[in-house]
Amino acid sequence: MSAETTFIDKLRGFASHPGARGLNDDAAVFAHGGKNLVLTHDALVENVHFLSDDPPADIGWKLVVANLSDLAAKGARPLGALTSYNLSGDDGWDNQFAEGLGAALAEFGCPLLGGDTVRAPEGSARQFGLTAIGEADNSPARDGAADGHELWVSGTLGDAGAGLEIARGDAEGPDALLAAYRRPTPQLALGQQLAQLVSAMMDISDGLLIDARRMAEASGVRIVIETIDVPLSPAFVEAKGDNRQSALFAATAGDDYELLFAAPKRARRQVETAAEDVGVPIHCIGLVVAGEGIAIEEGGRPLDLPETLGWEH
Amino acid sequence: MSAETTFIDKLRGFASHPGARGLNDDAAVFAHGGKNLVLTHDALVENVHFLSDDPPADIGWKLVVANLSDLAAKGARPLGALTSYNLSGDDGWDNQFAEGLGAALAEFGCPLLGGDTVRAPEGSARQFGLTAIGEADNSPARDGAADGHELWVSGTLGDAGAGLEIARGDAEGPDALLAAYRRPTPQLALGQQLAQLVSAMMDISDGLLIDARRMAEASGVRIVIETIDVPLSPAFVEAKGDNRQSALFAATAGDDYELLFAAPKRARRQVETAAEDVGVPIHCIGLVVAGEGIAIEEGGRPLDLPETLGWEH
Repeated sequence: MSAETTFIDKLRGFASHPGARGLNDDAAVFAHGGKNLVLTHDALVENVHFLSDDPPADIGWKLVVANLSDLAAKGARPLGALTSYNLSGDDGWDNQFAEGLGAALAEFGCPLLGGDTVRAPEGSARQFGLTAIGEADNSPARDGAADGHELWVSGTLGDAGAGLEIARGDAEGPDALLAAYRRPTPQLALGQQLAQLVSAMMDISDGLLIDARRMAEASGVRIVIETIDVPLSPAFVEAKGDNRQSALFAATAGDDYELLFAAPKRARRQVETAAEDVGVPIHCIGLVVAGEGIAIEEGGRPLDLPETLGWEH
Repeated sequence: MSAETTFIDKLRGFASHPGARGLNDDAAVFAHGGKNLVLTHDALVENVHFLSDDPPADIGWKLVVANLSDLAAKGARPLGALTSYNLSGDDGWDNQFAEGLGAALAEFGCPLLGGDTVRAPEGSARQFGLTAIGEADNSPARDGAADGHELWVSGTLGDAGAGLEIARGDAEGPDALLAAYRRPTPQLALGQQLAQLVSAMMDISDGLLIDARRMAEASGVRIVIETIDVPLSPAFVEAKGDNRQSALFAATAGDDYELLFAAPKRARRQVETAAEDVGVPIHCIGLVVAGEGIAIEEGGRPLDLPETLGWEH
């Protein structure tokens, strides 16, 4: 058991409020004033969640998106955000970060409400946090996937992962991939549309396979994913190809900020219509069955799971 | 202008929502479901906000109190909290921190709802954040103090500052002072009682004089404080004496987490009754007048302001 797991288990003892959802969901959800309030806080740490030489404006942007993506997964529209900012000692850097943060907040309609600014001692890694609060009529959890439901994913996967390889200088590829890594988009409109239709929903931040396993665990089911159906973008295919290896790369890369959801088969038409309404492509990539854990197939034939299912941090 | 001020000015450009209160208040306040929602996020950084050898449980406790004190200042009762935790690499340390955090959340009736746990790279200062959300019928800002209003403070001042000297090994003194530094109490019940009566309210986290100056600035008034009336505890007097120097120490020491508020003279009886009802002593320590900035007096005679009004960070 990792130190993080041990620590979270300890915190779980204090998190008996139903709104905490056992600390097993993307966000806290509790009733207030006839609506659900949805609250999330994600931090980004230098050399853990971003590279030291990533453009500061892109880091500010991603800090917003990482949190709004959690709201999207709970069907919420943003009400506002609080930042937790460590001054870097470089005013130009800080200003560019603030530009990117402000641009993302404006783009996704999330007012900045407050926060805290501190200066960390010399030698500390840069670290930033953001709390986002949103409102929803209905907030699907991760634990409702049931035997027979279909598994869906929005957008395409792997673009950000391929973009990270370009950012690191380890590969070359279309600009769209670097943009997917540096300027992701939270699926807010789609999440709000789907919230009433799905049985379980979460965002993919650490990789499809690891996040699908989390959904399977929370729901007490087994999830079987067809790797051939994992949606890949033209830019991704140009850089990484369209084969078993690239599909597994896409299924285990992080930072996608797409939505992963399960829905009963009878909801298929409504789910497809909801996605069409907001103009976001979705793909059915698997099935929920009785059992536990996850499995992958290729053209219906079982495939060994890769050693690493995604990004554990 | 400090880097922090420059950066916050930059953020202020994005914080046009009225709930942000121009980033000039202890917390964000916005209407939801017929109530005010109050949101705050404060971070604690090693060797900035706490000492490396402070007991970890006390740091966890103080992280909760620093945030709940902001809720108290806005008259809110806690609805819940999200933590932002950096694993320290020392499981025992992390566990003790969690114990203190959980103890404070339980003590002050604030459910843990979620958060994020990260591991910062080797060599980084320990850093922890907490977001608290609360609910209030009415949330006084800092900007309502007006000519002729009286200035009040809850509890006693300087105890935590004297306790910090003991924690640093720079002084000796009663255990109550170390306890005031390590295990402060947010004035939640008092804040809720006073919210309907006061014209301006904030918590004293950086020192009476610096915080009073912030209230004066926000309200566009001058605040005159009588140093003889600054309330000192018996333990504080035992350690530091009861004289001009000790009064100025108490008026500039941080970490008090007491409430500073202004109220019209006609509200005096109601204010005193509210404080009696919750069993917290309050003292009238000054007057709001036309003008700007702050001034201090000793027995009605003007006194030079000390060079440092409190803790700027």
